[in-house]
This record gives sequence, structure tokens and C-alpha cells, in this order.
Amino acid sequence: MTQPFDLPAYLETRRRVVDQALRDFLPKASEWPERLHEAMNYSLNAGGKRLRPILAIAAAEALGKDYHAVLAAACALEMIHTYSLIHDDLPAMDDDDLRRGQPTNHKVFGEAIAILAGDSLLTEAFFTIAEAAKPEQAAAALEVIRRIAQASGSRGMAGGQAVDLLSEKKKISVAELERLHRHKTGKLIQVSIEAGALLAGADKRQFESLSRFGECIGLSFQIADDVLDIEGGEEIGKDIGSDVANEKATYPALLGLEESKRLAHQLTEEALGVLGDFDAKADPLREIARYVVYRKN
Amino acid sequence: MTQPFDLPAYLETRRRVVDQALRDFLPKASEWPERLHEAMNYSLNAGGKRLRPILAIAAAEALGKDYHAVLAAACALEMIHTYSLIHDDLPAMDDDDLRRGQPTNHKVFGEAIAILAGDSLLTEAFFTIAEAAKPEQAAAALEVIRRIAQASGSRGMAGGQAVDLLSEKKKISVAELERLHRHKTGKLIQVSIEAGALLAGADKRQFESLSRFGECIGLSFQIADDVLDIEGGEEIGKDIGSDVANEKATYPALLGLEESKRLAHQLTEEALGVLGDFDAKADPLREIARYVVYRKN
Repeated sequence: MTQPFDLPAYLETRRRVVDQALRDFLPKASEWPERLHEAMNYSLNAGGKRLRPILAIAAAEALGKDYHAVLAAACALEMIHTYSLIHDDLPAMDDDDLRRGQPTNHKVFGEAIAILAGDSLLTEAFFTIAEAAKPEQAAAALEVIRRIAQASGSRGMAGGQAVDLLSEKKKISVAELERLHRHKTGKLIQVSIEAGALLAGADKRQFESLSRFGECIGLSFQIADDVLDIEGGEEIGKDIGSDVANEKATYPALLGLEESKRLAHQLTEEALGVLGDFDAKADPLREIARYVVYRKN
Repeated sequence: MTQPFDLPAYLETRRRVVDQALRDFLPKASEWPERLHEAMNYSLNAGGKRLRPILAIAAAEALGKDYHAVLAAACALEMIHTYSLIHDDLPAMDDDDLRRGQPTNHKVFGEAIAILAGDSLLTEAFFTIAEAAKPEQAAAALEVIRRIAQASGSRGMAGGQAVDLLSEKKKISVAELERLHRHKTGKLIQVSIEAGALLAGADKRQFESLSRFGECIGLSFQIADDVLDIEGGEEIGKDIGSDVANEKATYPALLGLEESKRLAHQLTEEALGVLGDFDAKADPLREIARYVVYRKN
């Protein structure tokens, strides 16, 4: 008899590996210029779930590799996620004072240092992947950099954030909302899976299945986030209903709460379906697909 | 008899190559999200000298290669330079309304889009290098990404900008000023030369000479900039004496005008000295070394 897979234990052990690796990769707060490095470390160590790095690790594990080959890229993804949070929180953007219950970067370090800390985390992400790549990994590392940059820039996450800001207080269609979220949140989640797959040596068919898996859970994650903003969560660290207050377009606002939940459920089923050819080593990915939708924070 | 080298003609032809390549690499303003791409194109096409890309090209040419192998990296360097200008001009940073005589990015597009346009240009730089690299170039391209990221992030340009902001209205030593400028301006200029050298297949000794050349002109360029701010230039596009008004530490303020000019001259001579083993193909680099110090804008 096989043991049931213990997701909380899995997430906890992988999170610790990622936390340690992030401390190893990032310049210490004692290194010149100290104030900037302090600001970078402040937000990176603010206690995230490390979902994107864990997805990269779980994708590699689904292919029978352990996390060592993907750890630098996994940490790079968290640096990019963290940079995006620092910049999104700025007064000129979403103007948030709290993030995960703590003062946001610019509230502690001022706007100028917060902007530069975000810039530097983004830059450090690409340094980290290039620095860690072994010679025989060069081609794969370069392809990972290409995909992560594409998923993060104007054709990805930053583009989605721009459209999100420009769409505030405007009525947009479900198709526009989906495009916005595929860019703002979805592509970085998808590329997390892709990075793990590429660095673990996936063949073309494995890569395409995992990429599609990442696309499905990228969107289901965002829908679940919108639902949590309405229904509330235990530790989400921002005010319940803040999207409504900011007049942001959300799935529940456009589709209703029940239809949003149904859509998230359907995407989860599709994600599980594309993993049909994978064995039990893909169980962490399967459980994470359920977790991103049925989580309470 | 050899013709005297015509620097203005050289700079003009290379600048045109770079301008065209930047148009080819960057997403068009008509591509979704249009407003963000418009903002990126606005600043990238604002008429810079393209000094960093031309340095990369000239370094490759000094080694007998033409510009094709280095064009993507050359454009990436200009994207990073442009992102730094957009962010430096923000109200939270230097708060400038004009750049090269035109309204700054945030004055035209607003702060949020200006921040995202800078973020996106930085990201696009790494995409551009990775996308353009041929398989046999993978290792060199990865090393170029590593060095450019190191020279641009908290241990380079962004770190120098942070210290510059934190040093305003404070008295700093000449050693601190040199460290600040080596980071804020020098490292990106140095890595421009290094990128050209690496992608042109420099051997270890050639690389080290060219790297040291880049280090010298990176610093002489900044000293000359400080001198121009006092003495004024024809087309510098910012108010004469603006550094003084902003109480910025500068070489003339710390060393006096004549001693600053002497130091810039000495660095130029050192730069020319390290090119001793290079033939006439390095003449563009030699003339640029003189130009960065004796230019009038």
C-alpha cells in the first residue's frame, strides 16, 4: 500500500530549501550598499509561500530529478515575484501600506530605495541563473532566461499589471479579464513549471504537458485569489474586499461567485488531465493544482 | 598613407545600425499592451548617443569581428541604460521633467506606466540577448548576461544610484565619490566593452586589456560629465549647474575643475596605453576614449 501524499509536509520541506537558497544567493544586508541590500532582503524574507520556486522543483521531481539542478532558477522566480510585489505596492501603483501583514517596502525604506530594490531583485534573478549554470547546462539556462524574461516583461507580467492599472474603474469583458490575468499572474506561474521541466531535461512531449499544466493552474490560481478576496482568508494579509474597494475587475464581479468557482474547478480538472502520462512522481504537482484552488489563504 | 580616422562618420553609421536594430528588437507600440509599449519606445527612441552599444561594437571590431555577433547585446545595453534614465527621472528619485530637451517618461505617461516601462526595458534586455544567441554562442551569451546583470544591479548601477540618492546633501570623500561613480556609470560602460569582447571571442589577455580600457573610460566619462555640468555644453539637455543646485557630490566640487580635468586626461592616457598591443582596428576605441572626455555634450 502506498502512503497518502502529505502536501503540507512537502510544501514545508521545499519552502525551507528555497528559503535557505535565497539567503545564499542574495547579497547580504551587510554588503555595500547596505541600505539597498537591506531593502531587498526585507521583502524577499517577508514570508511568502514560495509557490513559484516550489512549482519549478515539483516539475523537476515529476521528471525524476531532484531540486539541485533547478534551485537557482527557482530562486530567480521568487526574486521576480518579489520585485513585482514591491513595485505594485508603490504609491503610483496600487498604493498599499501592508503586504502579508507587514509594512510594504516603500513604507520602511522610502519610495526611491523601494524602486531600486525592485529593479535590483529583477536584475539579480537573471544573474542568479547565469551564475549557477554549469557549462553543460548553458543552452537550457539560456532558454530558461529567455522564457522567464518573456513571461515577466511587457509581453507578460509587467504588461498585465499595466493593463490592470489602466482598466481600473472601467468595464472590461471576461475575455479581456482573462488576458489581463494570463499576463499578470498566469505566465510567471506557467514559466515556473517550464523552467523546472527544461532544467530537468524534459522531452518535447513532457515539456508541452507540463507547460499546459502550468497554464491551467496559473489561471485557476488567480480566480481563486479573486474568490478569496470576497470570501476572506485566514492569513491573506490584506483587507477583505480590497479589490472591490479599488474597483478592480475580478472574476466574481464579472461571472458571479459560483460560476468563478466552477471555472477554477474545471481548470484544475484539466490540469490533472494533462498529467495523465506521469507517474506518482508527479503527485506533488497534482496536489498543488488542487491546493491553489482550494486553499484558504 | 593611411586615412585619418573619421570619428563623427564612424559614430553616425554605427548609431544608425543600433537605432534600426532597437526598432527591430523592441515590441512595436501597436502591440498589446499598446500604452506600455508606446512608453518603452518613447524613451528608447529619444535620441541618445548610443555610446554603450557602439562601445560593444567597437570592441568586437578591434578583434576583427563585425557588429552582427554583438548587436543583440549592444541593444540590450541601451535598453538597460534607458530603463535607468526613466527610473532616475521619477519624482521619488531625481524628479526631472526634461531629458535631452524632451518631457521625461513619467511626465508623458504617468508614474505607474513609467515604472513599468523601465521594468520592462530591463527585462527585455535579457530576453533580447537570450533570444538572439545561436547554439554555439550559448556559453558566451550566458557569461554576457551574468556580467551585464552584475554590472546593472545592486552590486553595480542600481547600487550606485542608491548611494548617490542617500549621499545627497552629505559630504563624501573622493574615494567614496569614485566608488559611487564606478558603480553608477562606470560598470555599465565597462561591461559594454566586455560584452563586445566576449561575443567576438577575445582570448584571456585581450579580454583583460579591453576590460581595463572600459574601466578607465567609464570613470573618465563621468568626470567629464561633471565638468560639462559646470562649464555647460551645447546639447546636454539639462540645466547647467543642476548638480550644484541638487547638492550632488561631483569631481569639480571635491577636486576643483582643473584637477578634475587632469584626472580625466590621465585616465584617457591609461586607456590608450592598455590598447598598446592592438592594431589599427582598435582606432575607433582609441578615438572614443578621447571623445568621451573632450566632447562638448
